[in-house]
Amino acid sequence: MNTKRVITIGGSLLMFSLSCALWLSRAQGIGSRVVRMAELEIDPAQLEAYKSALKEEIETSIRIEPGVLILYAVSLKENPAHIRILETYADIAAYKAHIEAPHFKRYKNLTQNMVKSLKLVETDPIVLGAKSK
Amino acid sequence: MNTKRVITIGGSLLMFSLSCALWLSRAQGIGSRVVRMAELEIDPAQLEAYKSALKEEIETSIRIEPGVLILYAVSLKENPAHIRILETYADIAAYKAHIEAPHFKRYKNLTQNMVKSLKLVETDPIVLGAKSK
Repeated sequence: MNTKRVITIGGSLLMFSLSCALWLSRAQGIGSRVVRMAELEIDPAQLEAYKSALKEEIETSIRIEPGVLILYAVSLKENPAHIRILETYADIAAYKAHIEAPHFKRYKNLTQNMVKSLKLVETDPIVLGAKSK
Repeated sequence: MNTKRVITIGGSLLMFSLSCALWLSRAQGIGSRVVRMAELEIDPAQLEAYKSALKEEIETSIRIEPGVLILYAVSLKENPAHIRILETYADIAAYKAHIEAPHFKRYKNLTQNMVKSLKLVETDPIVLGAKSK
């Protein structure tokens, strides 16, 4: 391996490492973060269609929206039609941008007749602990 | 910068990048993951002491237990004595190790008279979306 190639690889690794470090610092801190819990009840007959729409919406939001940091969606084992989503946005502006995004509006439109109830529970983060190495 | 130094830096960055990549793959996937929601009600008179003990327990668990991936603790804005913790463990063995760990036992002992109720809600992950770059 020659010097130039080593420098190129070193540079790429540096960029990747900095990206990682940036994300870790954003994912770990609390600051102006908006952390919310959504509690939904879904029509059981449409549960699979709902989960599919939700999955697509979450994957798109995480991929293309810089301020959407975490969207963890789970269903309750005792009642799978009950869904909870832990949402973390960088700040209130990121949240406002999210609900105006075309993929979010598409998800809302697609699922409007699947969702029997939706409750947004506002929270204050105490500690957001996640593995960083 | 000479070749040897570049190789050393490249090596360090490679190790860090691999650690990041390993963590990202662990944090993103679902697989055998245990994802649970703990719902607690705390004695309001002891809320600050409880949050302090919880913070220490979470920070220690994330730092020293390889299988404890996420512990997100929030309090409800409408009722700050109501706490929710989203917990993600690598697998059931990691969870069992966690509840046997000295720092977890210390937390349980310290907080036993602060916790008015505790409900563990078992969940199935649908999608665990988190920023990875």
